Amino acid sequence: MAKKITARSKDYSQWYLDVVREAQLASHSPVRGCMVIKPNGYELWENMQRGLDGMFKETGHRNAYFPLFIPKSFLSKEAQHVEGFAKECAVITHSRLVNTDDGVGVDPASKLEEELIVRPTSETIIWDTYRDWIQSYRDLPVLINQWANVVRWEMRTRLFLRTMEFLWQEGHTAHATEEDALEEAHRMLEVYRTFAEDYMAMPVETGVKTASERFAGAVETFCIEAMMQDGKALQAGTSHFLGQNFAKAFDVRFQDQDGKEKYVWATSWGVSTRLIGGLIMTHSDDNGLVLPPRLAPVQVVIVPIWRNDDEKSRVMEYGNSLLAPLRDAGIRVRFDDREQYKPGWKFAQHEVEGTPLRLAVGPRDVENDKVEIARRDTMEKELTDRQNIEKKVRELLDTIQSDLLSAARTRTREQTRTAETYDEFKQILDSEGGFIYAHWDGTAETEEQIKNDTKATIRCLPLKPEKNPGKCMVTGKDSPYPVLFARSY
Amino acid sequence: MAKKITARSKDYSQWYLDVVREAQLASHSPVRGCMVIKPNGYELWENMQRGLDGMFKETGHRNAYFPLFIPKSFLSKEAQHVEGFAKECAVITHSRLVNTDDGVGVDPASKLEEELIVRPTSETIIWDTYRDWIQSYRDLPVLINQWANVVRWEMRTRLFLRTMEFLWQEGHTAHATEEDALEEAHRMLEVYRTFAEDYMAMPVETGVKTASERFAGAVETFCIEAMMQDGKALQAGTSHFLGQNFAKAFDVRFQDQDGKEKYVWATSWGVSTRLIGGLIMTHSDDNGLVLPPRLAPVQVVIVPIWRNDDEKSRVMEYGNSLLAPLRDAGIRVRFDDREQYKPGWKFAQHEVEGTPLRLAVGPRDVENDKVEIARRDTMEKELTDRQNIEKKVRELLDTIQSDLLSAARTRTREQTRTAETYDEFKQILDSEGGFIYAHWDGTAETEEQIKNDTKATIRCLPLKPEKNPGKCMVTGKDSPYPVLFARSY
Repeated sequence: MAKKITARSKDYSQWYLDVVREAQLASHSPVRGCMVIKPNGYELWENMQRGLDGMFKETGHRNAYFPLFIPKSFLSKEAQHVEGFAKECAVITHSRLVNTDDGVGVDPASKLEEELIVRPTSETIIWDTYRDWIQSYRDLPVLINQWANVVRWEMRTRLFLRTMEFLWQEGHTAHATEEDALEEAHRMLEVYRTFAEDYMAMPVETGVKTASERFAGAVETFCIEAMMQDGKALQAGTSHFLGQNFAKAFDVRFQDQDGKEKYVWATSWGVSTRLIGGLIMTHSDDNGLVLPPRLAPVQVVIVPIWRNDDEKSRVMEYGNSLLAPLRDAGIRVRFDDREQYKPGWKFAQHEVEGTPLRLAVGPRDVENDKVEIARRDTMEKELTDRQNIEKKVRELLDTIQSDLLSAARTRTREQTRTAETYDEFKQILDSEGGFIYAHWDGTAETEEQIKNDTKATIRCLPLKPEKNPGKCMVTGKDSPYPVLFARSY
Repeated sequence: MAKKITARSKDYSQWYLDVVREAQLASHSPVRGCMVIKPNGYELWENMQRGLDGMFKETGHRNAYFPLFIPKSFLSKEAQHVEGFAKECAVITHSRLVNTDDGVGVDPASKLEEELIVRPTSETIIWDTYRDWIQSYRDLPVLINQWANVVRWEMRTRLFLRTMEFLWQEGHTAHATEEDALEEAHRMLEVYRTFAEDYMAMPVETGVKTASERFAGAVETFCIEAMMQDGKALQAGTSHFLGQNFAKAFDVRFQDQDGKEKYVWATSWGVSTRLIGGLIMTHSDDNGLVLPPRLAPVQVVIVPIWRNDDEKSRVMEYGNSLLAPLRDAGIRVRFDDREQYKPGWKFAQHEVEGTPLRLAVGPRDVENDKVEIARRDTMEKELTDRQNIEKKVRELLDTIQSDLLSAARTRTREQTRTAETYDEFKQILDSEGGFIYAHWDGTAETEEQIKNDTKATIRCLPLKPEKNPGKCMVTGKDSPYPVLFARSY
């Protein structure tokens, strides 16, 4: 009955792919780099969307939708931006196919005057639009979010973690002052941190990127970074302070209260289906997916067990009677009464799919008014009364949610080390990996050298650095405080 | 204070564009044919999505996501399909831009081995995937829906009604038998009819398309057709019985209970942001948008009226006190307490945006414990007690919802006529337009001739035709029953 999942200790990459496959989350598609998100994976994304969307709306944002295509010339209006995205983009050059001898060919007569790019991110098209939306300080702030698909031409793809097309949300805000924009960038970073921890049970470090890791066109990039079980970090979300770069590139000015014309200040921020990869690598085990209850598509599955028709009718009725109280309590419950599968098969399937709680009911449970309740995260089982089952289930779901966060916090803490010397740094990377705090001299050259030597990058600098001066582990030059390194996805 | 909206009687097309602009639903974008859906428009779409998605899930469907791109060769696997879509598609040929003397150019070295098409619809990529999903009758039915953007290279575009990129949902289902697939196609047509009438308050005719109007690759196309105020029909949703066309094109077979290998039967069905256009043209008037409460982003707006600080504090407190009871009753309410706008401006703005109910509260209302309540649809006002305001509002919202449907039904009935002769047919088209039932000899030639002569097309044939034989109005040949004609969007 065991599913075909490679042990993490044996091959973490293969384990990841096995979990994605066996939990039926996603698969590769015939279009290289694009994935098919299967219903189990998409429901996870829907639950993430619901959680995030609620938080965006609570902080005053509204959703809108901008074109999938960006005129080629737009990309080049912001100098850094084009540098960052020109090398990996899908270029549309024609608008018609024609029949040819060996199938279908591109009609040369349909060549476009100006090529279109499939959006890798939407700053350019949105800021071109904001020029029409913003005239006066009364029009500010503009607080917009978009749920969309984007495309970046990736060569080395990995389901959820790095795909050519991915689903995401991108917030794009416009403000009257630098202060307002910076505050917004920090506010959304905090929304991401809260979501990661409260919904995903995934603890994160927050910080600011170095210049070399900054978003193309940003003045500052803030990020949340999570530590995976295998000691590699995952950039899970970014919030950018864009300064006036895009306002200047697209000439977006407003008349301020003082009557003067000024350029608008901007932020953008996004998280993507990559979060699903992070979720998997934070909690799951060698038996498959483990899901935090707040995001699990099915929170509780009921599996009936019976051997003959007499037992069947009693067990089915009993199992069915559990549905209403659980549903009424707002719990996402499924009664798995499929007859073509045996209970053992169902147990294994729900285990690999990560359903947080499993209720099993057999003839003896009917007799004793009991239910066997099993936790996916700890694999613990107990017998409980049918009465107030919804209360018991709610409590257990809450416990699992907080236990998963605690466990991930403990693991991350154990995976966070400090290195005094470059040798120690390398030794930690090669043995355990994880986050490493170390001193750095603040130069791009040293950052580059470390990356070339060790494949580790600076994940972030602390947002509010404490004074903790030392010497750069590589050059011995002065360093005001340690920064966070890791190898990463 | 009047908004700049052209009267419908003067220029219906311009009226439509004026309403879309003044209600801030959408705008054109710098990418020809693509639109920007503004927050007011997108919230309408979100409410439509929520309603439809609930109905899809109740009928057993799950959401998934398939790639944006389709390999060129896929399109040609189903002969009719490629004919239908090859002439209007976005073709990706390259994957990289490079700096050139005058900006940015396409890197010739990045030419793709096989071009990719931006999906105009996803039958091909999905059926290629279903080959992996379906082996046995146990795997059937597959009931999948996708919320996505699609692109069809349209030259003559019109906000919401016809755009190059649009948002939609596309259901794609696989079945063991022809009967099951046909039943599904009819079931989803009924879901669309129910949604159009119960949510949009937009009555529709249901029927089946003639061969010439069929979806490219379908055996039968069923549709819902709505009649707009100006006498033109709008195809608002389609549900296709695909037979085994795509199963054969992509070699999707299953082992049936009898042990035999068989091709799978298919359906697909979709509605799009076009529905928003239909919604506008069903209910709105010369003062702007009119929205059915079930879809309105804001169902009730509260506008406070005061002249001095003393009045302000009392009115604000009073207005605020209405929020909680309304919210608790599940009503989408907004307190428009913006101070930079005067009440009269707000009245006009909420009128043009179509908010179904407006509550106005001034100092005298505070004194008398009253609220002035105004309906957007009828423009009627009344003074009502503050007590149980949520009950009054709920009742009025329900009344508005059903009144809008009744009014649209009455209008559609008045716009539905029968023509005995071709002259009469043409005379109706040129004077009133609307739906016309008339006899037709069943040939594509006559259908084509009518279209060329009059621009009217057969919107649909009745699903369950009553025996009502007559003579074709054009050729005089036998006709078993009248069919539904109209000019259309």
